[in-house]
Amino acid sequence: MALNKGKSNCITDVIGVKVGHVTLYEKLDENKTICTGLTAILPHEDNLFYKKVRAGSAIINGYGKTTGLAQLEEIGLLEAPIMLTNTFSVGAVWQGTLEYMLQTTKDIGDTTSSINIVVGECNDSYLNSIREQAVKPAHAIQAIEAATEQPAKEGAVGAGKGMVCFGYKGGVGTASRIISTEKEHYTLGCLVVSNFGKREEALFADWRKHKLETPDGSIMMIIATDAPLYDRQLNRLAKRCAAGLGRTGSHLDNGSGDIAIAFSTANTYEHHAGKADETMVYLRDDHEVMNQLFQAVVETTEEAVIRSLKMAKTTHGRQGRTIEKAPF
Amino acid sequence: MALNKGKSNCITDVIGVKVGHVTLYEKLDENKTICTGLTAILPHEDNLFYKKVRAGSAIINGYGKTTGLAQLEEIGLLEAPIMLTNTFSVGAVWQGTLEYMLQTTKDIGDTTSSINIVVGECNDSYLNSIREQAVKPAHAIQAIEAATEQPAKEGAVGAGKGMVCFGYKGGVGTASRIISTEKEHYTLGCLVVSNFGKREEALFADWRKHKLETPDGSIMMIIATDAPLYDRQLNRLAKRCAAGLGRTGSHLDNGSGDIAIAFSTANTYEHHAGKADETMVYLRDDHEVMNQLFQAVVETTEEAVIRSLKMAKTTHGRQGRTIEKAPF
Amino acid sequence: MALNKGKSNCITDVIGVKVGHVTLYEKLDENKTICTGLTAILPHEDNLFYKKVRAGSAIINGYGKTTGLAQLEEIGLLEAPIMLTNTFSVGAVWQGTLEYMLQTTKDIGDTTSSINIVVGECNDSYLNSIREQAVKPAHAIQAIEAATEQPAKEGAVGAGKGMVCFGYKGGVGTASRIISTEKEHYTLGCLVVSNFGKREEALFADWRKHKLETPDGSIMMIIATDAPLYDRQLNRLAKRCAAGLGRTGSHLDNGSGDIAIAFSTANTYEHHAGKADETMVYLRDDHEVMNQLFQAVVETTEEAVIRSLKMAKTTHGRQGRTIEKAPF
Amino acid sequence: MALNKGKSNCITDVIGVKVGHVTLYEKLDENKTICTGLTAILPHEDNLFYKKVRAGSAIINGYGKTTGLAQLEEIGLLEAPIMLTNTFSVGAVWQGTLEYMLQTTKDIGDTTSSINIVVGECNDSYLNSIREQAVKPAHAIQAIEAATEQPAKEGAVGAGKGMVCFGYKGGVGTASRIISTEKEHYTLGCLVVSNFGKREEALFADWRKHKLETPDGSIMMIIATDAPLYDRQLNRLAKRCAAGLGRTGSHLDNGSGDIAIAFSTANTYEHHAGKADETMVYLRDDHEVMNQLFQAVVETTEEAVIRSLKMAKTTHGRQGRTIEKAPF
Repeated sequence: MALNKGKSNCITDVIGVKVGHVTLYEKLDENKTICTGLTAILPHEDNLFYKKVRAGSAIINGYGKTTGLAQLEEIGLLEAPIMLTNTFSVGAVWQGTLEYMLQTTKDIGDTTSSINIVVGECNDSYLNSIREQAVKPAHAIQAIEAATEQPAKEGAVGAGKGMVCFGYKGGVGTASRIISTEKEHYTLGCLVVSNFGKREEALFADWRKHKLETPDGSIMMIIATDAPLYDRQLNRLAKRCAAGLGRTGSHLDNGSGDIAIAFSTANTYEHHAGKADETMVYLRDDHEVMNQLFQAVVETTEEAVIRSLKMAKTTHGRQGRTIEKAPF
Repeated sequence: MALNKGKSNCITDVIGVKVGHVTLYEKLDENKTICTGLTAILPHEDNLFYKKVRAGSAIINGYGKTTGLAQLEEIGLLEAPIMLTNTFSVGAVWQGTLEYMLQTTKDIGDTTSSINIVVGECNDSYLNSIREQAVKPAHAIQAIEAATEQPAKEGAVGAGKGMVCFGYKGGVGTASRIISTEKEHYTLGCLVVSNFGKREEALFADWRKHKLETPDGSIMMIIATDAPLYDRQLNRLAKRCAAGLGRTGSHLDNGSGDIAIAFSTANTYEHHAGKADETMVYLRDDHEVMNQLFQAVVETTEEAVIRSLKMAKTTHGRQGRTIEKAPF
Repeated sequence: MALNKGKSNCITDVIGVKVGHVTLYEKLDENKTICTGLTAILPHEDNLFYKKVRAGSAIINGYGKTTGLAQLEEIGLLEAPIMLTNTFSVGAVWQGTLEYMLQTTKDIGDTTSSINIVVGECNDSYLNSIREQAVKPAHAIQAIEAATEQPAKEGAVGAGKGMVCFGYKGGVGTASRIISTEKEHYTLGCLVVSNFGKREEALFADWRKHKLETPDGSIMMIIATDAPLYDRQLNRLAKRCAAGLGRTGSHLDNGSGDIAIAFSTANTYEHHAGKADETMVYLRDDHEVMNQLFQAVVETTEEAVIRSLKMAKTTHGRQGRTIEKAPF
Repeated sequence: MALNKGKSNCITDVIGVKVGHVTLYEKLDENKTICTGLTAILPHEDNLFYKKVRAGSAIINGYGKTTGLAQLEEIGLLEAPIMLTNTFSVGAVWQGTLEYMLQTTKDIGDTTSSINIVVGECNDSYLNSIREQAVKPAHAIQAIEAATEQPAKEGAVGAGKGMVCFGYKGGVGTASRIISTEKEHYTLGCLVVSNFGKREEALFADWRKHKLETPDGSIMMIIATDAPLYDRQLNRLAKRCAAGLGRTGSHLDNGSGDIAIAFSTANTYEHHAGKADETMVYLRDDHEVMNQLFQAVVETTEEAVIRSLKMAKTTHGRQGRTIEKAPF
């Protein structure tokens, strides 16, 4: 049974979740064009280091450079905003995100422990002069500060500015679903940065006659929900992105970093607790609501990819290259 | 670009691969019906312990009881036939497969090491009186000895006898593809035992008005190829089954053991080598042929599921239950 | 700081945990000797399917045949006794354990779901005529029914009957520790079946001059605790067995299946809950008690290996072979 | 049997391997001291992007921020120098290493694919004013260019400058072993940055009466060998570092990022191959040489930790803190 969409069909339908974009676009010369950006996803508006959220992940195809996943898996917590950008800006965005967290959290690295920074990426070098490394640490802070609970802009914006999906202009896409039990309603949202696939592979449109050679690309998929889940369960959600991706036509190509991260806003975890134990409420894996959450992941991943195409505009990039808006 | 199908669109299109079924069906009384079976997949006709094949696997959803995957991942080799059966027959089939290997390989457990048995399963208890444990160790030997290079029977046969897929009669399905490079042609085949999904979830047919409640189920997916690959690469192939499964409509439900195993017949490995090193030829991950192999996995997994439905017949099981043939 | 040992320095110091052994020994002829057995570990005395316990595992070296780990990782629950035996008896013990669970739990496979059986093994074929497959399904039931909260017998008993460790007689060993917080005392116990190592590798004794060639072997390590932990945390405990193993002198040899399973008796999980959510209390990872639990795993793993040697007796096996009691 | 040490008992005994350190030390004011650095490990002197080496890794405890491991596992190749530094310098060192690779490899991000940067870290904030972020991208280039095949400096140098191990001054340590077959000699070396443990936990010295509270810390362990191995096998080597670490007394504490990376210089892989397949020679897992390699990993990991203490000097850091040289 189809699930109902959230109010704005956006990851920000999950109460508290914010999205911020910084988009960089400049034609430097005949051959060089800056056509890139970054996107920040914040689970709530408080200090994320002090009030961590449960998180999980799935490396569906590991040809990617996402940072922070080892600790995410070991401890099951997210303690800094999820940052998305281009492949060569991982260092700069990591650095800027650290600076933001140090500025807003005076005790990290002094009286308390370190911090785990999560930066995901796709390779926008078909359109973007990626070797120029236009993204600077300050842009990361800017993206975090720009984050809002308003419906996120989609298409050729933020980290999606230079991305190419199924041979047409891709980028940022998002979707959401409502899951219901007898007692409760939960919301699940997905935001993707899409940068993969060949035209003839799309299952949601007939583009077989319009072939275009592009490199393997990647996709970052971020799942947010207010359903009370813990890390093992969030790993399970993240894994389901593979099925949603399969629905679009993806074969998980060799050079495609296909990486999913899932978090719940429901069971926050205090950094300074001063106690030995915690109490947590979570949904049972064998309750029907879990299958609905899985369904929501599959559906929103698929729809977010399609929306990333629908909302994107024809974009001109380096070396006179143009990627057209998808004809649908 | 669509890939060409193999000669018989069957996993046995991979030269040397054999499939054997044993089907058990008997109405015991008003409430009890034996409606189950087992299926053996042999990579080649020689002794598999002495001449092992490279293999990999992917646990897409781990709610399953497949044996032997830890050693498969550690060593990257398959040394006994892949056996598929119902959930409560894992022990009996494990035992029978061991007995077959001991009978045909006199030095195992005497002068040489142990052997790793791989048994996969789905839960056919909707139709089958699974608590009766009708499958005996001798049936495993029978299935192995029945294996042939002929096109495998599909539908309600072997391990698929009692399985239910998308609310209709599922079971064994298979498909194959040809992959070409400038110099070479390779074949990749997939065989599934399908036992998952609700009617309204199917993406390849419109069954939304015919709801039927069935439990979560499972799917076993076996990939065979003659392309020269090694274990890490075969893990990658196995992982792609998730995308094929997603295409059919699966949400990888909570209670569904969704497990894939992939092997290559090209780089066999001698048990008694008496030497320190080996030489191996393998395909580069970044060559276009690898993406074609990934595509073949996705396409054959999807098609094998659909064929498991198309080839199955209406089946009567325990407690007067009937599962109908799918209306297409 | 050294931790205090539990009352009996045994895994059964964890309240409710029971251990049962069945030992098989018979000289069949000149060359053949049955010298093997099995060991059952029960987390509590109630029906484990209805009242599951949280569990995790670590595959430290995957050259082993342990069943049930995929579902343990996916769902984080143990629902059948942990069974340990020899390599070729995995099928029989799996079968017997299933039969026990079916007899005591009428709805499995009928009105409710399937069951996940966990059987671990080591290869005792140096002393035991393993090809004879002396262990039968009934022995598994016998071992479960023999389980008691009394201090477990150690050495050449149960699954340890035929095992060889560091070239001397190994087998079953166990140890326990008390962990304290301001408010609470917890107990952690370890039981191993030791079957690995060469004499000259032992770090806890000087056996360098007494070389003896034995095959690579394996070790099963079971950790039990009453500390309230959940599955991710129990995976962490299981992983620490590698450090304890390293302390003994092990190099985690190629053919050694080094596998750890950890469970907590504190947060049981009802099979039939009829509700959507659960509440769980668990220890914080960053509280000092967690490091003490890790220390307890390391210390008890090391000590259990040493005790498996100390408590074992010189044993005569097949082909006139004798493995001596370690000289300490 | 003990293995022979390499010529200089250093990771650079593996022919071609180079190590470069940059050490930063400056007292800024009463409370702030820069006491940190970075270390680069190069597998050979050619362009590593064009001539990649096989690599594997093991996340023994994932409370760490190492970048690049997902792609390492997916593809099994290392294509940039391994960089080690402090926790808050991961971004800067990532950025500097990227810049070095872009400068020396004109086609990355233009006509060919992206690049995977591997940066490991430990938290030196006990002595180092880590919030100052003294390490800049240029230091990464400096460390790479300083790399030499000479025996590496050990102790309070490079990435080890501010590290604390077992409550005394730790840092960089290294060791090597020779492994022999009938036909061949291989070398295996390990380099660690040690930053973990409490005094009373050390198994190689009796420091029980000199307690000192320090945070959980971490350890990075890099294994190099000229033995011909492939990625799965190198994962196995990396995993054995856990046993070596266990020997020193580590309990793999909660907040300790214990991460191992292993590479082989023997089977390089051309980036621009223009062909579909490759031929590789590798050692069999079941040959005795593999167990010797495992032994070498365990022994060198343990010894490298001890040497990191032996070679380090008493160091003064931030807030008037001093960490003494270990008393042995």
